[in-house]
Amino acid sequence: MPTIVDIHTHVYPPSYMTLLRTRTTVPYVRTFPDSPLSSRLIILPGEDDPSQPSTSRGRPIGPDYHDITRKIAFMDAHRIDKSVISLANPWLDFLAPEEAATAAREINDEVDGMCARFPGRLYAFGTLPLSASAEVVAAEVKRLRGLKYMRGVIMGTSGLGKGLDDAALDPVWAALEETGTLVFLHPHYGLPGDVYGPRAGEYGHVLPLALGFPVETTIAVTRMLLSGVWERFAKLQVLIAHSGGTLPFLAGRIESCIAHDGYLKGVGRAKQMRSVWDVLKKNVYLDAVVYSEVGLKAAVDASGADRLMFGTDHPFFPPLEEDEEEWLSVKTNYAAINTAFGGDDKTADDVLGGNAVRILKLD
Amino acid sequence: MPTIVDIHTHVYPPSYMTLLRTRTTVPYVRTFPDSPLSSRLIILPGEDDPSQPSTSRGRPIGPDYHDITRKIAFMDAHRIDKSVISLANPWLDFLAPEEAATAAREINDEVDGMCARFPGRLYAFGTLPLSASAEVVAAEVKRLRGLKYMRGVIMGTSGLGKGLDDAALDPVWAALEETGTLVFLHPHYGLPGDVYGPRAGEYGHVLPLALGFPVETTIAVTRMLLSGVWERFAKLQVLIAHSGGTLPFLAGRIESCIAHDGYLKGVGRAKQMRSVWDVLKKNVYLDAVVYSEVGLKAAVDASGADRLMFGTDHPFFPPLEEDEEEWLSVKTNYAAINTAFGGDDKTADDVLGGNAVRILKLD
Repeated sequence: MPTIVDIHTHVYPPSYMTLLRTRTTVPYVRTFPDSPLSSRLIILPGEDDPSQPSTSRGRPIGPDYHDITRKIAFMDAHRIDKSVISLANPWLDFLAPEEAATAAREINDEVDGMCARFPGRLYAFGTLPLSASAEVVAAEVKRLRGLKYMRGVIMGTSGLGKGLDDAALDPVWAALEETGTLVFLHPHYGLPGDVYGPRAGEYGHVLPLALGFPVETTIAVTRMLLSGVWERFAKLQVLIAHSGGTLPFLAGRIESCIAHDGYLKGVGRAKQMRSVWDVLKKNVYLDAVVYSEVGLKAAVDASGADRLMFGTDHPFFPPLEEDEEEWLSVKTNYAAINTAFGGDDKTADDVLGGNAVRILKLD
Repeated sequence: MPTIVDIHTHVYPPSYMTLLRTRTTVPYVRTFPDSPLSSRLIILPGEDDPSQPSTSRGRPIGPDYHDITRKIAFMDAHRIDKSVISLANPWLDFLAPEEAATAAREINDEVDGMCARFPGRLYAFGTLPLSASAEVVAAEVKRLRGLKYMRGVIMGTSGLGKGLDDAALDPVWAALEETGTLVFLHPHYGLPGDVYGPRAGEYGHVLPLALGFPVETTIAVTRMLLSGVWERFAKLQVLIAHSGGTLPFLAGRIESCIAHDGYLKGVGRAKQMRSVWDVLKKNVYLDAVVYSEVGLKAAVDASGADRLMFGTDHPFFPPLEEDEEEWLSVKTNYAAINTAFGGDDKTADDVLGGNAVRILKLD
């Protein structure tokens, strides 16, 4: 049996839950008077519609989000040997600068402690205090090297507030590169709601989750490319959520648009820029959270079979039927791996866990 | 030698150019005092920045856009036997309702006449008066059946103004289905500029063209799916530009998000909806304008090798070096076909032209 490693799996540790419970604007967790027995998590602006009954605001949040023994039970039920847990979006992006550094240290220590309770089964990506300064962030990147179970950091697309093409982030990229710290790049902000049209309210969360998330990620990575992040930090390693958003599919179009852009040629940038294909093969890792054989094959074609790693996105996308022991979202991703690499045990095993063990040094 | 057919190739026929020259707001064509010898085409709001010198507004527009003999010369230079020409974006979306019907008839007759000058080499997708009523649009769909070289219609994503999930479009879908008219779905509006961040101005047109266009298309098609267009019009055939935007890659995520959406389940929609995979294989055709082997393979995996058709996007993406006879954008798409299907002459020939000849009944 292959070792199975889940590198895309989230927690809201208890101290983060406490933080969310003290808030009244997005993101927050609240118990509403008309449904006192269940808490609701509201993390996306579109989920917070005061005109709706509280039971349709956000989503119910239970112990799967914060009780680490539930993570272990989920792993056992799905044959997952090891998980690399990460704080879910929106991380600490919303904190006042003076609170962020302390919160990051506390949460990272707490998550490392969670891993220590289950040695060999849990590892983690740390959280960064991105609303503070680049120097504070860089200091936390370096401090994380002293925590036993940390294997990288998770980061959203807003950077210090101006996106990942902000030159002010350079000290952060430098610290990440210097320490060999992998960045798990993950979306949160999506796209402005009006791009989905006047009927979007009839479609539940489908459009922002299915399209807004991967597009946000793709825009962020393309901005990194265009601003020269990977020219200045040629060894920076980034694991892109949801198999790269849409990057494997759109890489050719991005490359062609750069080559045909009169402005970029005029300012001398077009030829300096690294090829997106080169970045995909040398700087990018992809998770296998794309729910299809088509997507997985494109991910492997773009970055290589040695750079793709299984994930679940747990505790999001739980089954809608309460009695389902195996989650549909997980079964779909397992099935996609089997179909895409079915005739090739080596590749399937690498994607399921071998790559993660090697890349993240999970002994 | 295989027959090569270009199904994604645009014209602005002379009467449309006249229309654009009479306008002063986007879209328009203008000659500026500081550059009197060249006209400039401004079709995207982001291209019209009065603070910039006129020579960096929009793009130079020359005879490639409106002189049909230049299309033939381009075809000859690139070994293209047949082209299915279509009016480029933004079509007639901007016209007052009372002008649209007449303009559509005139332009369609004019384009059909262009094709008649080069029998066997040119066919066309017609233009619809979408700012008029659904009934007026449906009438033009039916009238087009009488024009000898018409092989479908081109359509943007705005529909009658509220998008392609607008129930008011049903008479249009009905007319298209009833007449067996293929819809070439093409982006124009992109995404709101602020999604690209504060440094977007440093990146030329790359972000809106490379990402905004395919994402707009993907959102439009997903809205059609969610609103049940393909349940009500099960035979409607749509050719999606740029290999489906990002649809082949994101189809699995769309399907998963639908299956996990509590709201859609609650209102009973989740199980009524057709699978996106089923729609991709039965209702969708894709062009091969994706500039990569990775994208082409994903397109074929999603829709089948019998539904993918070569295109160039001419006259957009011209070479930046004036002496290049073969366009880089075309060479890139040819090379992608060769790499993706190199060992399989049948598939390569089908994609290059065989599929188009069969599907569009060219000859």
